[in-house]
Amino acid sequence: MNLLALLDLASVFVFALTGALVASRQQLDIVGFIFIACLTAMGGGTARDVLLQRDEVFWIANPIYVAVAGTAAVLVFFTAHKLESRMRTIIWLDALAVAIAVPVGVGVARSLGAEWPVLLMMGMVTACLGGLARDVVCNEVPLILKARDLYATAALAGAAANILVYEVVASRPFAALAAGLVTFGLRAGSI
Amino acid sequence: MNLLALLDLASVFVFALTGALVASRQQLDIVGFIFIACLTAMGGGTARDVLLQRDEVFWIANPIYVAVAGTAAVLVFFTAHKLESRMRTIIWLDALAVAIAVPVGVGVARSLGAEWPVLLMMGMVTACLGGLARDVVCNEVPLILKARDLYATAALAGAAANILVYEVVASRPFAALAAGLVTFGLRAGSI
Amino acid sequence: MNLLALLDLASVFVFALTGALVASRQQLDIVGFIFIACLTAMGGGTARDVLLQRDEVFWIANPIYVAVAGTAAVLVFFTAHKLESRMRTIIWLDALAVAIAVPVGVGVARSLGAEWPVLLMMGMVTACLGGLARDVVCNEVPLILKARDLYATAALAGAAANILVYEVVASRPFAALAAGLVTFGLRAGSI
Repeated sequence: MNLLALLDLASVFVFALTGALVASRQQLDIVGFIFIACLTAMGGGTARDVLLQRDEVFWIANPIYVAVAGTAAVLVFFTAHKLESRMRTIIWLDALAVAIAVPVGVGVARSLGAEWPVLLMMGMVTACLGGLARDVVCNEVPLILKARDLYATAALAGAAANILVYEVVASRPFAALAAGLVTFGLRAGSI
Repeated sequence: MNLLALLDLASVFVFALTGALVASRQQLDIVGFIFIACLTAMGGGTARDVLLQRDEVFWIANPIYVAVAGTAAVLVFFTAHKLESRMRTIIWLDALAVAIAVPVGVGVARSLGAEWPVLLMMGMVTACLGGLARDVVCNEVPLILKARDLYATAALAGAAANILVYEVVASRPFAALAAGLVTFGLRAGSI
Repeated sequence: MNLLALLDLASVFVFALTGALVASRQQLDIVGFIFIACLTAMGGGTARDVLLQRDEVFWIANPIYVAVAGTAAVLVFFTAHKLESRMRTIIWLDALAVAIAVPVGVGVARSLGAEWPVLLMMGMVTACLGGLARDVVCNEVPLILKARDLYATAALAGAAANILVYEVVASRPFAALAAGLVTFGLRAGSI
């Protein structure tokens, strides 16, 4: 299992936690938790794979992702009521998931030979569309629309950092690290 | 025309009725009825076909589905004002449509050789995404989010029943029947 | 660059203006403007290309579209506060963009050899889904749902006009012109 796949798994897990926490605010049943967790965790990557016409959508090629998202949902289902502030937890986990998802999106597009404007778009699509679908379906004001929070901005800057670092040192791990740090730094600084 | 195609046609018709009834609550014009009916009726199956990368999306391969959804919309346009409770009718028709769509989604994925976690997901995607799109676009609280109603749960249980029965008796019609009964039973029992 | 590509570019630009104006009503930051502008401008055409399984989604094949939508977003970001009525501007620009997008959608589907019900659907999908995504994401009541405004109706009538004119004179430019005039006439007349 390579770096991209590992990061993808991590972002799926963390995004699924945020999805399940929103499901918990909506007081859904356990399958509702799983449904919203999967939508949040795999929505962005699914859009990316469909748009790039990859051979297979990542979670259809490898259903481990479905299991990981489902596990996160079940975990939250049995513990969310113990959290003091679910909204605060959602926002911080979401920042972490976005920071992981940006380099994944850019990396997948790069491995398919896409040009740099497409790399930028795929970083944003992978990072933003899952959380956006979560908020739209659950009737919450999308996190991405809150003006003072640098959300799309953080994702775009992270994707740009990834591309720049890769141009200079041609190292995928360093490029991914730069993208994650820039995205998380900007997003966390604005919360 | 095989069993899958017939069931698909039936679920498209019934989902289109629910879409048109929601359009009627929103007091749209006749083309608005047709638009929402098509979105509801074909949204789930379209997502399924795009995700599974079928050779063609079902209603592009065979435009009869568009005609069926359009007919349902026109029917409702001229009769909906006579219904005493549109919301009640929507909920029951929706339960019926979901019960038909679950075995269709599982069956399509099975005929493409997908593994069982993908079968489960495709049952839920086919059954839930059309109604979800209808409710999100029309600014209604998504049926799927109402906690006491077993919505996603019914779809997931139906898909699981389909897989189990198919493992045991290897009969597609029996598996489809089991899925439909389990889904409708759980959903109707919770309304 | 052929007629279809030019029209597509024009509709992307005008739809992006409407998306950025809605972003301005929501007081987003500049990257939020770009995000909503891209979603609005390229959402309908992206759905069309994914549904028709074109070789590549148009803006991935040719990233100039991303640049055009981004430029429109930046333009609006620095000028929107000078507009007296953003809502009025949005509605008129949107009518223009829909009138351009309908013949583009029909034309793309025709060039892929689709049958006429699919041509009608692709005219509506290309013209309506971008604006619908814009309104759903930004929590605005979708323009398409406002009953007295002939929105989907205008798009459908325009697509039908395109098909009829093409049957009679077999000229793509004339068919596109007819579609644009019928769509804009109906939509503008109902505003």
